[in-house]
Amino acid sequence: MAIKERPRPGGRSARVQQAVHDAVRELQEARAREALTVPQIAEIAGVTPSTIYRRWGNLSELLADVSLERLHPDEAPADTGTLAGDLCRWGEQYLEEMTSVPGRQALDDIMASKDASRRECCCRYSESIMQGLRERALTRGESVPSLTAMMDGIVAPMTYRLLYDPASATVENFERWVDTTLSSLASR
Amino acid sequence: MAIKERPRPGGRSARVQQAVHDAVRELQEARAREALTVPQIAEIAGVTPSTIYRRWGNLSELLADVSLERLHPDEAPADTGTLAGDLCRWGEQYLEEMTSVPGRQALDDIMASKDASRRECCCRYSESIMQGLRERALTRGESVPSLTAMMDGIVAPMTYRLLYDPASATVENFERWVDTTLSSLASR
Repeated sequence: MAIKERPRPGGRSARVQQAVHDAVRELQEARAREALTVPQIAEIAGVTPSTIYRRWGNLSELLADVSLERLHPDEAPADTGTLAGDLCRWGEQYLEEMTSVPGRQALDDIMASKDASRRECCCRYSESIMQGLRERALTRGESVPSLTAMMDGIVAPMTYRLLYDPASATVENFERWVDTTLSSLASR
Repeated sequence: MAIKERPRPGGRSARVQQAVHDAVRELQEARAREALTVPQIAEIAGVTPSTIYRRWGNLSELLADVSLERLHPDEAPADTGTLAGDLCRWGEQYLEEMTSVPGRQALDDIMASKDASRRECCCRYSESIMQGLRERALTRGESVPSLTAMMDGIVAPMTYRLLYDPASATVENFERWVDTTLSSLASR
């Protein structure tokens, strides 16, 4: 269950990974996902199919790997001046992404993967975003909940609803989770 | 995404389902899961492979269906005299089941299923358990959180940790989720 190291940047392994990921994304835009095959991906990436099988095992795991890349947070969420504002801004964008067709597909790919370290990676991504927002709020002098309280009170119900009850994965509910988590802080 | 109706009890459809589910469970006990095949299951169940393909589509969906059955709550959780006690008793048993090898496999089967209604079914099962415990506590005259507060505060963080961060799916954390959910009630 260890989280795999990313290949060394610039090395051959990293170049292969980049080329294969790019080929998957290119094909995903051009055709229905059910039509993707490893030989096609290999051809576009300029590698042999056996390189792909050796490294990813099968098509499902390759798709899960590309999807995990998609979920990697690439920039700090907007600074709105308050922790509540930052959280709501982030939640709105995240829910918009995760309820889109490609977002849902990315989540499904990761849930279908046999490699549990991908899910743990998602948890670490969310922790790193929450921690970034906490630290920004601390710098402003706000009182902030613990990282655990933010994960349990905000990220967990959001993810639970996205997976199990998508009709309830709404911005209104997200605002309620933020409110409950921040107000339980005030009452302690 | 509609939740499928279970077949009418006693009808042919229900008998086929029962025979096929029993065959899967029998084979799962006897051999490694990777060794299961639709023709073997069909032979033991006394149906044709095409009956299985017509009804379930493929082996993964059949396994997910059997796993959902496994997660169906079959009896009311123990009455310990308080809501906090009932919740902790239930949580302890549920975590023990879901961190066991067959429990984890059942969860993985459902997450890998292309049929989102299975996940929604899990959410409805959890709601029905929480609602049963709430009503029992109301009968005792206890103050109780809303069903939504119990799902967001207890079921969601437990499920999130089981899926994304199994090392944190512990009884100690479960007790903390119960405590936080019940004490936020007291402070309102």
